[in-house]
Amino acid sequence: MSTSTALHTDRYELTMVDAAIEKGTAHREAVFETFARRLPGARRYGVVAGTGRLVDAIMRFRFRDEELSWLSEAHVVRPATIDWLADYRFSGDVWGYREGEVYFPGSPVLVVQSSFAEGVVLETLVLSMLNYDTAVANAATRMVTAAAGRPLAEMGSRRAHEEAAVAAARAAYIAGFGATSNLEAGRTWGIPTMGTAAHAFTLLHDSEEDAFRAQVAALGPGTTLLVDTYDIPTAVDTAVRVAGTELGAVRLDSGDLPTLVVDVREQLDALGATGTKITVTNDLDEYAIAGLSGSPVDSYGVGTSLVTGSGAPAAGMVYKLVAHRDDDGAWVSVAKASADKVSLGGRKRAYRRLDGGIATAEVVRTSSTAATRAGERELLTPLVANGEPIGDVLGTVGVAAARAHREKAVGELPAAAFRLTRGEPALPTIYE
Amino acid sequence: MSTSTALHTDRYELTMVDAAIEKGTAHREAVFETFARRLPGARRYGVVAGTGRLVDAIMRFRFRDEELSWLSEAHVVRPATIDWLADYRFSGDVWGYREGEVYFPGSPVLVVQSSFAEGVVLETLVLSMLNYDTAVANAATRMVTAAAGRPLAEMGSRRAHEEAAVAAARAAYIAGFGATSNLEAGRTWGIPTMGTAAHAFTLLHDSEEDAFRAQVAALGPGTTLLVDTYDIPTAVDTAVRVAGTELGAVRLDSGDLPTLVVDVREQLDALGATGTKITVTNDLDEYAIAGLSGSPVDSYGVGTSLVTGSGAPAAGMVYKLVAHRDDDGAWVSVAKASADKVSLGGRKRAYRRLDGGIATAEVVRTSSTAATRAGERELLTPLVANGEPIGDVLGTVGVAAARAHREKAVGELPAAAFRLTRGEPALPTIYE
Repeated sequence: MSTSTALHTDRYELTMVDAAIEKGTAHREAVFETFARRLPGARRYGVVAGTGRLVDAIMRFRFRDEELSWLSEAHVVRPATIDWLADYRFSGDVWGYREGEVYFPGSPVLVVQSSFAEGVVLETLVLSMLNYDTAVANAATRMVTAAAGRPLAEMGSRRAHEEAAVAAARAAYIAGFGATSNLEAGRTWGIPTMGTAAHAFTLLHDSEEDAFRAQVAALGPGTTLLVDTYDIPTAVDTAVRVAGTELGAVRLDSGDLPTLVVDVREQLDALGATGTKITVTNDLDEYAIAGLSGSPVDSYGVGTSLVTGSGAPAAGMVYKLVAHRDDDGAWVSVAKASADKVSLGGRKRAYRRLDGGIATAEVVRTSSTAATRAGERELLTPLVANGEPIGDVLGTVGVAAARAHREKAVGELPAAAFRLTRGEPALPTIYE
Repeated sequence: MSTSTALHTDRYELTMVDAAIEKGTAHREAVFETFARRLPGARRYGVVAGTGRLVDAIMRFRFRDEELSWLSEAHVVRPATIDWLADYRFSGDVWGYREGEVYFPGSPVLVVQSSFAEGVVLETLVLSMLNYDTAVANAATRMVTAAAGRPLAEMGSRRAHEEAAVAAARAAYIAGFGATSNLEAGRTWGIPTMGTAAHAFTLLHDSEEDAFRAQVAALGPGTTLLVDTYDIPTAVDTAVRVAGTELGAVRLDSGDLPTLVVDVREQLDALGATGTKITVTNDLDEYAIAGLSGSPVDSYGVGTSLVTGSGAPAAGMVYKLVAHRDDDGAWVSVAKASADKVSLGGRKRAYRRLDGGIATAEVVRTSSTAATRAGERELLTPLVANGEPIGDVLGTVGVAAARAHREKAVGELPAAAFRLTRGEPALPTIYE
């Protein structure tokens, strides 16, 4: 995408730049840190997603004539600031947890170092992308655990904003889903797409048999036939009669799934369709998937609960100034001090402490004491240096790398991390 | 926006077209209906939003060479279907509840009449837009009620996908919010934008007073100063000293708001800043807003809970084939019959029954018996006729019309509709 992302910005970011230019403080070198104060839903761990989209979006954060003229007409900032925005191009550095990395409360998942003005205007873009994509990845990774090796398909596009849907498919794939229904996600991010027919297709035809024959004629006997438009046993019978025992799968989208799938499995086997699979898609979430673990289900399709973060639709990350240089060039650690939103100032580095390949702690150190020690894995990697992207974070390459990294990082977690119940984070966050 | 929306589509919609072309049923005239089986969160009414965005998106639903070549390479459909998609241009009719209209379970909020193939491919686009935008409007309208006339600003962009954020600002404005922090929403939809400074601005400077002086120098004494970075009474004192008693407002973003705003109001008054307003922005939802109704708050900023639908992040609307013509040209009403997702077939019309200006029922009639009766207001209006948009639904004109219509429609509701507690819909849906 080549369009500008510059107005995906809250007005106060530009008015802060305006006032800082006036005051002569806009150029002060600054460090902004993105972190979550807690894991939403009292989950045991989170999975960072959105990083690859973000790096691309930062590259497209440019104020063109159309943005500048609107900002002038709307009197958002003064003319001197319009001139500064016209030249805007992020020239600083960004470090981040790899996309697909596991995180915990306080993990500094993204660190932006630049002039105050260059960094402060990225707040909304950073948070929109990381909060939504991570919320989906956080839900998806639990569903992948609950499915215990059975394939999962993302099919929630209809329950999310149309562009969010594409990002959701991407985040779910990174977190271990195998496919998506969303064609734009297939095109843009290289994710396998799936899907065959809805109830409308059966209802359009004069009989269920007509519909099944039409589908098999076009898509072959290996297709998935939807068998719950009318009477399920009749439909299963018709499906095998029409497609033969080579029928790929039947899909169930309603009813009491645990008993239903047992009945359908028995019926398919009795009809000789022992290789025909059963896929279920009825308002599933991680708990429903776990509840089907003993049932003869072959794959799951998940919609609403996935794209809405299964009860936690935003990851709750914040973007905070943690340090800046003063006029003498000395670094000053800063943090809000009042009331309930206290945070820790200073530039930080983060490490995953491991014992025998199993993670035991999230270690966050301030820069002055920071160095990787034995048994630790450094978590912050360079994403942007002097304004240029670094490494395999963009495009389909970035998605594939993130998916592989998530599998590795989740593989290091202790067993307690995979409980679906509410509880404490699986690792303690230790500040040193 | 001029880009194609054609791949914001679930793969099964195109495979259904593929099979229907093969079978010779793709041309059958069909009626698709969008409705919600229930109001999420057991709310009393809903507010339709997204319609204007949807009509624009339908106009941009075109398969260009880049979409067609990807669909061919990915083997989504056969070559004959690629040819059909190349010529796709929606040529049917769409009726809908006006944007901003109130709706209830079973309300046919959008009706698409076209060939099966032309209509079935719009399912995901229709639902993505209506489900997300309506979810936000449903939350927003309750917050507007809870605020009881005090102004509300939307500032949740950072807790939603970056494009969803723009749609959320639009939906909130339609539902009665007065402004947004999101600059893209200001540019695209003509919504007033607001915002002045974050904690980062105070933290950047050598003292809170330096920061306040910089902000007042750039934005004038009428600005809003954020007073909870360090000690609030000290900050309020500094704010009035720096800006004078002409200070526009102070903002509180943390702490125990009900007691805090009383203290701050007393302090401002004692300092002579009796016209200085207090705005609060700390994780508010409709319940927190209602809880502040007796406190001297002047305006609210709402973020996370608004853009995530305050516990119901998708409106739960579905898009169902309800009727089609058979090969003899006769209309056939259709509906899924099995298990738990039964729906009512047939093309419907809908009316709001009123008594003395107060709504008493949602009346849904099948076409054959449909006619507006005394004391009823017809709810379905033409949005697209023969593929062309009708009326003031697009752009900023559409947003303004929707905002006005929501105020009128909500004004007709009985008092029971405005309870924030979970419960039954405020009006019964009557099928005749």
